[in-house]
Amino acid sequence: MEALLHQSKAMCPFLKKTSPATLRSLSTATHHSPGGGTITNLQFIARRCPVMNKALAVQSARMRTSNYTSAAPSIGVVKSMLAKKLHTSAEKKANVDTRIYRKRDDVLPGRVESAFAKSKDTPTPGPKPCAPTASKFDYEGFYNKELDKKHKDKSYRYFNNINRLAQEFPRAHMSARDERVTVWCSNDYLGMGRNAEVLKTMHHTLDMYGAGAGGTRNISGHNQHAVALEKTIADLHGKDGALVFSSCYVANDATLATLGSKLPDCVILSDSMNHASMIQGIRHSGAKKMVFKHNDLVDLEAKLASLPPEIPKIIAFESVYSMCGSVAPIEEICDLADRYGAITFLDEVHAVGMYGPHGAGVAEHLDYDVYAAAGPGASASPTKKGTVMDRIDIITGTLGKAWGCVGGYIAASASLVDTIRSLAPGFIFTTSLPPATMAGARTAIEYQAHYQGDRRLQQLHTRAVKQDLAERDIPVIPNPSHIVPILVGDAEVAKKASDMLLSDYGIYVQAINYPTVPRGEERLRITPTPGHTKEFRDELVQALEGVWQKLKIKRTSDWRAQGGFVGVGVEGKEMQVEPLWTDEQLGLRQGVDGEVLQEALEQENRPEMPAVVAKAAAAA
Amino acid sequence: MEALLHQSKAMCPFLKKTSPATLRSLSTATHHSPGGGTITNLQFIARRCPVMNKALAVQSARMRTSNYTSAAPSIGVVKSMLAKKLHTSAEKKANVDTRIYRKRDDVLPGRVESAFAKSKDTPTPGPKPCAPTASKFDYEGFYNKELDKKHKDKSYRYFNNINRLAQEFPRAHMSARDERVTVWCSNDYLGMGRNAEVLKTMHHTLDMYGAGAGGTRNISGHNQHAVALEKTIADLHGKDGALVFSSCYVANDATLATLGSKLPDCVILSDSMNHASMIQGIRHSGAKKMVFKHNDLVDLEAKLASLPPEIPKIIAFESVYSMCGSVAPIEEICDLADRYGAITFLDEVHAVGMYGPHGAGVAEHLDYDVYAAAGPGASASPTKKGTVMDRIDIITGTLGKAWGCVGGYIAASASLVDTIRSLAPGFIFTTSLPPATMAGARTAIEYQAHYQGDRRLQQLHTRAVKQDLAERDIPVIPNPSHIVPILVGDAEVAKKASDMLLSDYGIYVQAINYPTVPRGEERLRITPTPGHTKEFRDELVQALEGVWQKLKIKRTSDWRAQGGFVGVGVEGKEMQVEPLWTDEQLGLRQGVDGEVLQEALEQENRPEMPAVVAKAAAAA
Repeated sequence: MEALLHQSKAMCPFLKKTSPATLRSLSTATHHSPGGGTITNLQFIARRCPVMNKALAVQSARMRTSNYTSAAPSIGVVKSMLAKKLHTSAEKKANVDTRIYRKRDDVLPGRVESAFAKSKDTPTPGPKPCAPTASKFDYEGFYNKELDKKHKDKSYRYFNNINRLAQEFPRAHMSARDERVTVWCSNDYLGMGRNAEVLKTMHHTLDMYGAGAGGTRNISGHNQHAVALEKTIADLHGKDGALVFSSCYVANDATLATLGSKLPDCVILSDSMNHASMIQGIRHSGAKKMVFKHNDLVDLEAKLASLPPEIPKIIAFESVYSMCGSVAPIEEICDLADRYGAITFLDEVHAVGMYGPHGAGVAEHLDYDVYAAAGPGASASPTKKGTVMDRIDIITGTLGKAWGCVGGYIAASASLVDTIRSLAPGFIFTTSLPPATMAGARTAIEYQAHYQGDRRLQQLHTRAVKQDLAERDIPVIPNPSHIVPILVGDAEVAKKASDMLLSDYGIYVQAINYPTVPRGEERLRITPTPGHTKEFRDELVQALEGVWQKLKIKRTSDWRAQGGFVGVGVEGKEMQVEPLWTDEQLGLRQGVDGEVLQEALEQENRPEMPAVVAKAAAAA
Repeated sequence: MEALLHQSKAMCPFLKKTSPATLRSLSTATHHSPGGGTITNLQFIARRCPVMNKALAVQSARMRTSNYTSAAPSIGVVKSMLAKKLHTSAEKKANVDTRIYRKRDDVLPGRVESAFAKSKDTPTPGPKPCAPTASKFDYEGFYNKELDKKHKDKSYRYFNNINRLAQEFPRAHMSARDERVTVWCSNDYLGMGRNAEVLKTMHHTLDMYGAGAGGTRNISGHNQHAVALEKTIADLHGKDGALVFSSCYVANDATLATLGSKLPDCVILSDSMNHASMIQGIRHSGAKKMVFKHNDLVDLEAKLASLPPEIPKIIAFESVYSMCGSVAPIEEICDLADRYGAITFLDEVHAVGMYGPHGAGVAEHLDYDVYAAAGPGASASPTKKGTVMDRIDIITGTLGKAWGCVGGYIAASASLVDTIRSLAPGFIFTTSLPPATMAGARTAIEYQAHYQGDRRLQQLHTRAVKQDLAERDIPVIPNPSHIVPILVGDAEVAKKASDMLLSDYGIYVQAINYPTVPRGEERLRITPTPGHTKEFRDELVQALEGVWQKLKIKRTSDWRAQGGFVGVGVEGKEMQVEPLWTDEQLGLRQGVDGEVLQEALEQENRPEMPAVVAKAAAAA
């Protein structure tokens, strides 16, 4: 950069005679351009230059006169432009985007001549550049305004470069491959992403059937893997049909949009904390929507009762809500659905693999003993008429969280599934998931249907973390699930906390901000896995303690003194939230005190891998 | 099934005394039920049975009284029910869905008692089943009505179970693993799905980084693979930024929806043949839409000119249109965009990997020599100001066709990309693509950026097929691309042709019907790849000839006699459609006659794999 400026100064008479200080001030002060926008004084002057004028005109035609096109930026200006453009967080070795440099090179005065020299590399002459006028929309300016808003309210996101290591779960490296961090916020909830059986299946399938499906499901992308996976999913949930999509985002969006638009006069009742994918699907359907208060049966019933009995109604909700870990009153919602002639649409993405004796989700879990008695393996579990899972009309799930791969699905009656298959553009007009992905996911489902050990350990580790944090007055949002959301309540502080955990303690927990959670409810979201043994847990708790102290973040007692917030410090609430997995289901003795839990944890650190599991997985 | 009926007859007094003929007729004749629907006579009688009545009430509560719940179906009825429920085509060994049998088992008279016996397996008592009343919506009935419509207009789709073999490209097996068919309709256009470098990268990445990303891009799913892939894509297209999505369906939908909803008073001008993903995105944006006639610059300009100059406008179109192979006048559209203050949104999913000296698409191809002079490798190609590709504002592409994997992307200015990254729910709220997928796709892109051999062979094979079919008067829709659409013009006949090709000739070409193409324009869509050598091509042409004769399908001359249709048999048109790849670019001598083409093909059958290609792919 320095060499370039030096060269430029030598070649350009203007730069030669103008001091750096003057250049700097010229490049920041603005001027109203003839076209009606604002440009820097430097750009204004540059237009008088026979060489720069041409370069600017072409640049502007492309960039619609944004402040990022100053002709001769100082190093300081370039650096600040870089800082704004980079969205990957600066870690120890920041991933600097060198392409920005190249663009600036293209318009620096000293280089203009060579850029436009007649040579083999001269680009084919383009259209006569139109100088920007007031009558053309300033697209780049608009994008930058939108980005500025995100910077201002601290919701602008900096992605962290986290490379989760299959052979060192739950560790990862960042840019530098020899450094290590511990990941505490992944949705690879059971570590299936590195499961030996899953990987074996995927390796084999890659070699036999290649990297991609090669087409939509209608045009060469339907195969034995799709058939087998959909059957496995349908069997798991006790449904007649299942349909796999690129992701559960797509499954939710496409299914709700199709049903809501096709069912005549359909009304969709949607839990206030529903995921974006469902909100979008409902919006896309054009159907009337009624939002009911989160998990509030009274509100839901009132809304149902206000509607004509004979019109189609869909109650859309989740089993486990991702960001706060709350669990829906599923059975009662089914009762309401029956009473008012509605169908139920239940998103179990944060439950499948982790709840129920076969990992079919919370709906299965609510009839735990019935399904446990069905014996090992999803395919052995016949339809259980009248159980909660049986009563749900549409269950949606993901292959990308507890089952470690990617993809999504619905499970429902054969007719409903066939209707979505036949009508939903989001299913029809897209390339099928790769065979290896489908096969790997199926292995993961079968594995977890036969083996309790992983989800049991996940639950035990979660209890341990929640207990440790409660002892230190660190504000966990109470909930009955495997999710440990820690309330911060400020976007900037949450980011600082996350950055500090990473830089000072080598612990990765992403700060969760708007729009994933409402403004003012920013949090850290921790997800203990079977791999988070005591050593990791102790590190985490110490680190959180350190960060809470250094940044003086509110504790549970602080929230309580304020009257409580999003469940934290709300009197008596902490005592009332029983985990979904009971002591009995986890095989713990009555009452869980520190000693019992510790004993259970020590036993579980050598989980059995019964022959039947390996065999079932191999057969899958 | 036989044994079951036998057992049932022994146990049930009614079945014992009723002849099969009577049963059959009872199961088809209908009766008006008290609830207002229709049921078979058999069901009506069954309700008098103390055992069946209970079973039917529970069944009905779930299945909302559809005709598929007859109590004691005859084998014939079961078979027809199976045929209706199955959407996978019956091949030599049809994939019979045995779950249907299980459901029928549940309600056969002889088995009712055991199903409801008090045992460990008794389901938790469910809600009192509500007998269906007129005041509740008949969901299942509705789904079945929608499906009936699809059956009636022959647009109901039967998926073929096609398992493309990586080691025998372009062959596949169906249900039976030892049988072989040749696939002629896949979008794995260059066979990259089985490319050794791609697979090697994926195997390695699976072992190092596991099966799934484990989170959204914000929460643990952003990693070196995403950074590297997005950089490769941006460099390939000469843009400052790129963003990867689950698929290009999602990329198109999310990007158009976000831009169209955020840009104030935005108008989106959309080519009449645009893909469903763009149509959905535009719809979801809520922006005003104007559809211009396919590739019609006059119509497009008139519409642009009718709008205020200062409002934001997006011209959305494709480079190669999938189902007819036409190519857009991209440069002229860029001229119009400049003149009227619009931005261009160009979907190159059917072009990337296959056009341009680096496989960057048709936009790159239009400045072939400029980009070819940039030397091998996408990363060596600096931004070429004023070239067509440079002038396009947003390029979208897929990783799932010519590059053989799965996924989609946009490439555009840094600000636009950052805006979509920050605002589009379809990007934000979904699990990131797996590391192995991203790494494999990147290897494929780099490979094809360094190597011309595959797309050259693809073009030569396409020319050969088009020539052979023209000689036989088989109606190819003329176009300048690699796609060979063969007009049939009738949904039922197209399906018959496809089925016959498969069953009689072992050739898989999916029939394309509504909604992928308009009704009445049904076709077979053939996509020659580098793997379709002369032997395969001769088989194809013979098979098509055979099918055209047997089914008496219209030939080109027939369409011509009728005045032509969708470009087929339109006077003079066949002579005017020059391939996008010129003889010179393909390295052919002036004029392509049979002998020259054959010679070129023979030479190409031993394509070189320069050391630089292997090296570049390994470095990726």
